[in-house]
Amino acid sequence: MTVTRDDVDAAMARLAGQVRRTPVLAVDASTVADGPSWVTGPLWFKLELTQHTGTFKARGAMNRLRSAAEAGELTDVGVVAASGGNAGLAVAWAAARLGVPAEIYLPTTSSAAKVRRLSTLGAHVVQVGREYAEAYEAATERAAATGAAFCHAYDQPAMVAGAGTLGVELWEQTGGVDTVLVAVGGGGLLAGVAAALAGRARLVGVEPVGAPSLHAALAAGGPTDVAVSGLAADSLGARRLGQIAYDVAVRCAVTSVLVTDDDLVAARRWLWDRYRLVVEHGAAAALAGLLAGAYRPEPGERVAVVLCGANTDPTDLG
Amino acid sequence: MTVTRDDVDAAMARLAGQVRRTPVLAVDASTVADGPSWVTGPLWFKLELTQHTGTFKARGAMNRLRSAAEAGELTDVGVVAASGGNAGLAVAWAAARLGVPAEIYLPTTSSAAKVRRLSTLGAHVVQVGREYAEAYEAATERAAATGAAFCHAYDQPAMVAGAGTLGVELWEQTGGVDTVLVAVGGGGLLAGVAAALAGRARLVGVEPVGAPSLHAALAAGGPTDVAVSGLAADSLGARRLGQIAYDVAVRCAVTSVLVTDDDLVAARRWLWDRYRLVVEHGAAAALAGLLAGAYRPEPGERVAVVLCGANTDPTDLG
Ligand SMILES: Cc1ncc(COP(=O)(O)O)c(C=O)c1O
Ligand SMILES: Cc1ncc(COP(=O)(O)O)c(C=O)c1O
Repeated sequence: MTVTRDDVDAAMARLAGQVRRTPVLAVDASTVADGPSWVTGPLWFKLELTQHTGTFKARGAMNRLRSAAEAGELTDVGVVAASGGNAGLAVAWAAARLGVPAEIYLPTTSSAAKVRRLSTLGAHVVQVGREYAEAYEAATERAAATGAAFCHAYDQPAMVAGAGTLGVELWEQTGGVDTVLVAVGGGGLLAGVAAALAGRARLVGVEPVGAPSLHAALAAGGPTDVAVSGLAADSLGARRLGQIAYDVAVRCAVTSVLVTDDDLVAARRWLWDRYRLVVEHGAAAALAGLLAGAYRPEPGERVAVVLCGANTDPTDLG
Repeated sequence: MTVTRDDVDAAMARLAGQVRRTPVLAVDASTVADGPSWVTGPLWFKLELTQHTGTFKARGAMNRLRSAAEAGELTDVGVVAASGGNAGLAVAWAAARLGVPAEIYLPTTSSAAKVRRLSTLGAHVVQVGREYAEAYEAATERAAATGAAFCHAYDQPAMVAGAGTLGVELWEQTGGVDTVLVAVGGGGLLAGVAAALAGRARLVGVEPVGAPSLHAALAAGGPTDVAVSGLAADSLGARRLGQIAYDVAVRCAVTSVLVTDDDLVAARRWLWDRYRLVVEHGAAAALAGLLAGAYRPEPGERVAVVLCGANTDPTDLG
């Protein structure tokens, strides 16, 4: 299983008018001048935090559901997913848009807030097991038994290709970039954008040290389990990189850098202080990679940073 | 005293590379479909909240200071202003950029937070009198005595023309609009954008019922004092419309609509819930005018809403 530029182009056509073409902010020279010495511009932020449901996951979810509908796989039974996080919200939203039922599986340990948010979007929440893995298993069994379309949070071609549409927009909006920095959990976003821009821009995947799925996969020569902890575990805490992501990462020579939780906090605060933009901790990772110096562009290198989500409580920015 | 398109064009040249070209968000069809029946799109948000110092005032302040520098009026004595709000912050920022001292006059009743923010930007804060009018008087006297360049918060050609550059960008970024909704305090933003787009787009000024300076001026046939109260008094609470704003408003046939404080709260919340964008209450006014139905576009009318500031505590959006 892999994803190519053609898959992303097909997703572009499928998603036209279905998801938001999110704006790009050209970072001004004075911000660059005030920044770390290795930030020399040109630099852009892709404001994907303004996407439906607050993250890029809406792209993949909508692409998955519309692909399933085209293939005749989407029936009145609807769709099943296992995620209390941003992928679950996106699937619930896309299902509501298409008027099909969504069943979202969560562990019994999930917060009431997560259950409430999914219910507000019209999803039917099923709580099974004490760990995410148990909920996941139950969800796949349920989909197999009922014929519902199963939506994986990241390791499914349509999810990856949908995320890749962000890369196509970015290229058009900037007139071309050399490097794109993205946060990595299961690697769907990374793989989608890498496939979209294959041969045109290089991708740098940024992860917290507490959730190094890409780093570990590249080191081990394939996806491998990692221990997950830290501030961004909620969004970036996939236990292992997806197979599709690994395949695309190797094909596109993606590189990996790590940041600390302190780097995430500092980048999130920097963005609010300087641009009055709010992101969640996971979505601050790509920017943190640049500000903390984990990735240092060459002079003149054209860099884009994807600000991929804002499902966060902004209380601590007050 | 007035401001024309030529003044705005001169400001565009003066501000190139000095302020941020803020992004525009094209509101997607599904948001429009979910909205009130009179919102039929096309619709854009100008994300001026990402400007330096968090509001459009940075444009006017920088244009004022650079104009003064060009005219030889900017000496080592620097610049004086009277404002504890967004105009004061913008003047302090622009002065720091140009390396000249800024003295900002405030009443003794101003909050410690305001004084601290200005000091952080390197300004010298002078507290005089119990009311803003006293601080204002002291500031103009001080400027006259020392030869410092005085910066008015809104009723000065360079401040207005600077704000107008936002309108030029908006036109370029959208490919043309029919109507622009902006919040009104002293009317500098309104007048600048109206002058920039004279003969091309019509302006609608939106004010809270507790700060109706434009509404009162249009009714009375000239700027007139109003009582000021409500949630947005901090940013929109000018006691009377500026003379320049009145002149441009009449020349450009600007119209005025009013919204309630509840409308501001609802619009600010709507923007966070749907787009994860944070604005201050005053900057929610233009959107509130549309959502509350105070302004109802014709079908097909191309509407832009200026989101002009985010100097707010986002705690209550948690
Ligand atoms: C805000 C945000 N950023 C990044 C990611 C990581 O995406 P992926 O799992 O596709 O690597 C996620 C995943 O949920 C997310 O919600
Ligand atoms: C965020 C914001 N919006 C709108 C205004 C109103 O601008 P004007 O006084 O030019 O009408 C102000 C004024 O300070 C402001 O700070």
